[in-house]
Parts: sequence; C-alpha cells; structure tokens
Amino acid sequence: MADLSTCPPLSRESVIEARARIVAHVHVTPLLTAQSIDSIASVPQSEEALKGTQWEGLPPANPRIHFFFKCENLQRIGAFKARGGFNSLLRYQQETLKDAEASKDWKERGVVTHSSGNHAQAVALAARDLGIKARIVMPLVSMPNKIAAAEAYGAELVFSGYTLQEREAAVSDIVEKTGARFVPPFNHPDVLLGQGTLGLELQEQARSILDQTPEAGRLHAVILPCGGGGLLSGVATSCIGTGIKVFGAEPSYQGADDCRRGLAAGKRIDRVRSLTIADGLRTSVGEIPWSVISDRTKVAGVYAVTDEQIKKALRIVLERLKVVVEPSSAVPLAVALFNEDFRTMVEREASGGVFNLAVVFSGGNINLDAIGDLVREES
Amino acid sequence: MADLSTCPPLSRESVIEARARIVAHVHVTPLLTAQSIDSIASVPQSEEALKGTQWEGLPPANPRIHFFFKCENLQRIGAFKARGGFNSLLRYQQETLKDAEASKDWKERGVVTHSSGNHAQAVALAARDLGIKARIVMPLVSMPNKIAAAEAYGAELVFSGYTLQEREAAVSDIVEKTGARFVPPFNHPDVLLGQGTLGLELQEQARSILDQTPEAGRLHAVILPCGGGGLLSGVATSCIGTGIKVFGAEPSYQGADDCRRGLAAGKRIDRVRSLTIADGLRTSVGEIPWSVISDRTKVAGVYAVTDEQIKKALRIVLERLKVVVEPSSAVPLAVALFNEDFRTMVEREASGGVFNLAVVFSGGNINLDAIGDLVREES
Repeated sequence: MADLSTCPPLSRESVIEARARIVAHVHVTPLLTAQSIDSIASVPQSEEALKGTQWEGLPPANPRIHFFFKCENLQRIGAFKARGGFNSLLRYQQETLKDAEASKDWKERGVVTHSSGNHAQAVALAARDLGIKARIVMPLVSMPNKIAAAEAYGAELVFSGYTLQEREAAVSDIVEKTGARFVPPFNHPDVLLGQGTLGLELQEQARSILDQTPEAGRLHAVILPCGGGGLLSGVATSCIGTGIKVFGAEPSYQGADDCRRGLAAGKRIDRVRSLTIADGLRTSVGEIPWSVISDRTKVAGVYAVTDEQIKKALRIVLERLKVVVEPSSAVPLAVALFNEDFRTMVEREASGGVFNLAVVFSGGNINLDAIGDLVREES
Repeated sequence: MADLSTCPPLSRESVIEARARIVAHVHVTPLLTAQSIDSIASVPQSEEALKGTQWEGLPPANPRIHFFFKCENLQRIGAFKARGGFNSLLRYQQETLKDAEASKDWKERGVVTHSSGNHAQAVALAARDLGIKARIVMPLVSMPNKIAAAEAYGAELVFSGYTLQEREAAVSDIVEKTGARFVPPFNHPDVLLGQGTLGLELQEQARSILDQTPEAGRLHAVILPCGGGGLLSGVATSCIGTGIKVFGAEPSYQGADDCRRGLAAGKRIDRVRSLTIADGLRTSVGEIPWSVISDRTKVAGVYAVTDEQIKKALRIVLERLKVVVEPSSAVPLAVALFNEDFRTMVEREASGGVFNLAVVFSGGNINLDAIGDLVREES
C-alpha cells in the first residue's frame, strides 16, 4: 500500500493532478439529460405512494428537478473503479521509477488486491495497460463471470477464504513473499482522488449544457451512491470551493445505510451485514472516506431508500434513459424520486425554481439474466 | 406532404443545412468505444460457428476491427427518428411562416402521420416542442406502451385499420378535412436529410477520438440498420465525398432482407412480410431512400444476419457496452461479428491493418419484460 505520508492531500488540486495522470487511460463518460425523468421527479408523490412510510399523511414535497446523469457505467470495465485503479497504479509507477533499485523488477512484483467485483477488474485492467503483474485474491465462492472478467485482463487469481479477514491475510502473505504493492479498494487517498476525477468532468459537462440556456442557472448539487465511500468522498473533494452541494445515497435494507446512521450517531459504523439488491453498497464506509464524508462542509447529507424503490428507479433508468446500470447505480435516483426528506430539502433549496441535480451512475455490471426479474412491474 | 419540388437536393450540403435547423432540438448522442467488443470481432469465427451456414468448411476471415458505436438509442424519444421528425416540422414551419395566409392557422392544422412506432413519437414530440397540433393514425392493434408514449406528448390518436393501405387512407382523409401536413415516416427528402445529421456528428466524433492516436488512421466505414431506408440513405448522403464507405444491415428472417435482395436483382422490392425480432426493420425500402442506396458510389453493400445472430449481438451490447438497444439496433454489429462475406471484405479492405468501423444504434425502445427472454444464453 502506498505510504500515507507520501500521498497528496485530500484537496481539489490533488483531484486535478490525478485527472492529468489518468486522462489517457479512462473514458470521458457522457453526461445525459432526460426530460421524461425530470417530469416524473417534478410532481408530488401520491398519498398512496406514501402510505406505510414515515411520511404517511404529510403533504408531499413538490420540487422541480432537472437531472444530469453521469454515466460511469460506460467507463472502462463498466464502472468508476477504473479511475481509482489507474490513479493508484500510475502513482506506484511514478514513485518506483524514481528509485533505481526499486524500479528493477517492479513490473514482476506488481500489485495485489482482494475483491470479487469491479475493483478486481479495475486493478487487473490498469496492470495490463501498464504491463505489470496483478494478483487478485477472490473469495472461494466467486461468481464465474467475475472470475472470467479478471482472468480476461491477464490477472493471476488466488482463491482464498470466505471472510474479508481471511482474504486480507492472503493479501499480506502475498505482499510479504513477492514484494507486490497492495491496492486497497476504497480506503486510500490514491483511490479516493482517482474516483474524484469524475466530479471534475461532470462539473465541466454540466456547465457546457447549462450555458446553452442562460436562464437555467448553475449546477446545484450532485448525489452519489455510498458503499465504501471512495466515490462519495472523492467527488466531494472535487467539489470543494465550487458551491456544489454533495449528497450520498444508500439502501436501507438490513442496515446497509451505515453511513447515514453513522452521521446521525456522530461515529463511523464499521460493520454491515446486508443482502440489499444494491450489492455494491453492502460495505461499510472506510476510515479515510469517512474523514471527508463526516465533514458537513463537504457532504451535506446522506439519504436512504428501500430495495423496492431502488428497483423502481432501475426500471426508469433502463426504460427512459436506455442505459444498463447495476442496482447500486439506481440508488441516488431512487432518493430523488422517493425520499421525502430529500425532496423537501430540494424544494426548499431551490425556493420555487428548478434544482439542477447531477446523479452519478457508478456502474453497469449486472447479470443480464436477472434483469427481467429485477425490473418486473408489480401486478 | 412537403412538395418534392421545393425540397433541397440529396447532397451533403443539404444534410449540413438540416443539422443547423434541428441542432437546438436534438441531443448530440455519444460515440462509444469498447476494447472488449473489438477483441470479440478480431478473432476468426470457429468452425463450429460456421457449421450449417453457407460458409461451412471455408477458412474463416480474420479481420481486425475497431468499433465506434453511435448511440441514437440515447436520442430524444430513444431513437434517431427525432432528427427526421424535427427536420420535417421545422421545414414546414419555415415554409409556412413565409406565407401570411398559410401561417394564420397552421398550428391548429398541424401535422398528421401514421406509425405505431418511433416515428409516431418523433412527430408528436416535434409538434409539442413547436406548439402545433399532431394527429397520429395508429393500427387498431397497437401496443399499450406505444399508445401511452404518443399520448404523453399530447398527440391526438386516430385508430384505423389493420393494413398500411387503410392507415394511408385515413391519413389522406385527415389531410383533406383538416389541411394538416402529412409527415411520411421515411420516404421523403426532409426525413432522409434529418436522419443524415447523425452522420455528420459521428464523423466529427470519430475524428476527435482517432486524432488522439495518430497511428489509428481515419474512419473507414459506417454500417447501419436498413428498414424503410431513411437512416441508411440519409447517413450515406452525409458521407458523400468523405471517403467513408457506407454499409447496410438487415435481418434475413422471412425475407426481411428486401434491400439486399433488391440490390442483387437490380430492382427495389416493395413488399415484405416478416416477423423478424428486429421489428423496426420489417418494412421494405422506400423509393426515395432506394434512389440513394442503389447507387454503389453511395452505399457499398448490404448484408444480412439471422435472428439468432441478432440476439447474440444484442446480448453483447447490453453486457459489454451497457446501453439498452432494441433488436433492430443490434443488426449491424451482428453483421460485423457473424457475416463472413462482410468480415472477408473488411479483412481485404484493411489489408492487414485495423478497420475503423462506426456502428449506428438506431434506437432503444424495447419492452423491458422481454429482455430476459431475448438475451438468454442457449444452454
């Protein structure tokens, strides 16, 4: 793992530097708009929809929202994780090449990580692009498609254990024996600053769209999914000093809203066990992301939604926006459509005007055979 | 219908004019790349895959293809038809406003068309944006979701007949009674030139991507779905004089490859009855599109694929590119992956190098509940 003392500070400037570092390796992903989804969000929820929720019987909020959808599902490997992966490996390369001794066999020593998901693919891809060796520690029970994806990028797979602790031990073992560099999935400045680069892109893209209609004003806020917190804290860092508010979105199922609960309690929750359909968000927030997220000047709030609401939002994205997203990606839109606390806040913030809100789709790696079941309309 | 004698010629310049006309009303859709799909296309098909086809026993082609995917599924109304719709209505507006008498009640007279698909939505949307009345003649057996989509844009729906002839008669009737302007779905220069605007966009977008790696060369060709032929002929018109070759792609099921067969026979085929899954391509090519497509200097060839091959390509688009496309959109990619005549030609054209090929996704209006069945992998 890159020594924390050598890492750049968690500032907007560091995100700008990270962007210059990775720009040749990642896609500039599109920022889409969709009047039909704006219309859905810009009418009050029905009394029926609020029945059985904490907002039953209260007058529904009536915000006007103009969405900007940042499509990191169209990023390389199908997820924003490519950014953090490349930033980590390129920083490793820069550091190593300064040192004649270290640079001798660094490609062979390479990198190691543990993940069964998008981070594994991100590290494997970045290692392949840079021509260095990657070892990925995967759970013994990994899905065949995840295994195939990491193998396709030429990574060496090590199957180990059922628990995170076992996999972390396997990583330590590899680091010790081979001298490989550990690339953590989210709890590290290199990763956080890499993910933050999408924030800079979306600020520029929203600006260029909004400039076409002067009365449209500026981008007011961005809302992102929060799992380990690398994405949320990275983009929040990219927004420092811009006046753009940053919000997090989580599934509430089986307590997966650890970040929201932690903020309420004033203390990070370090353990979550949830089987929410938003499977990218089953993790608890890491310490370094938490240092950013718990700063109210950087992240203005975190909101949660049910798995049913996530499914509804997922259907709207597939049907109206025509992009494939994984359930985790649909969580922020679900908040904007269904969470009355969020919608009331938006109505108040915009004071009668339109609220320009960027929604980040984190990834699109979904099992196609499951899409039908996920989005089936209740009869 | 706009008098043909007043229409601009079918030239690249006319496409450029059309683009200036519609630019404020349509999205610039993204042009995506995907190394993983390039890799799939850039290995020879297996002997197994060619078994039972006309290429059985022949050595498979070995082209190297770099794809550029033009995402008109992300266009307004989810399909390229928005372009032709806006161009037709804006031309109508320009013409009418020149004439004091005609301009008096033109908004109320409005436009009429017959369609149960994307063209209906395109005309309804353009009419709403321009504040004029739209009447849509739909088959008596239209799908509820198509009806809802056209109604959502405020169009007046007229249900009439089971055959195209009955619906055309209903349109004539409305034109006579109300003075509405008929907007044909594809067999008209205004429509053709409107669709062609996406060709200009993709030329610029491909250029800007290819310029980043000087050794990558230029865009060699574009391949598009061919139903009524408005898209294919429009984009071919946008490519005149650029050196970019243009190809058409059709489903072969039940003779839906009328354009390919017509070219072989030297005569347009004006009747098709096919239930191919590529439901946007069940039409035969119109006369005006045919005048462009049958010119070998404008369209270099048309190729066909089976419905099974279309399903395979559809799965690859959803899984690797993470965008939702309708089956018709997957037909050009299916040709590039599975049609050995096309692949042999590409290998020859590129003479050992990489062939830069743009693939146009025409639309993304698919019934979500059917996606699971469409893309299920054969066991």
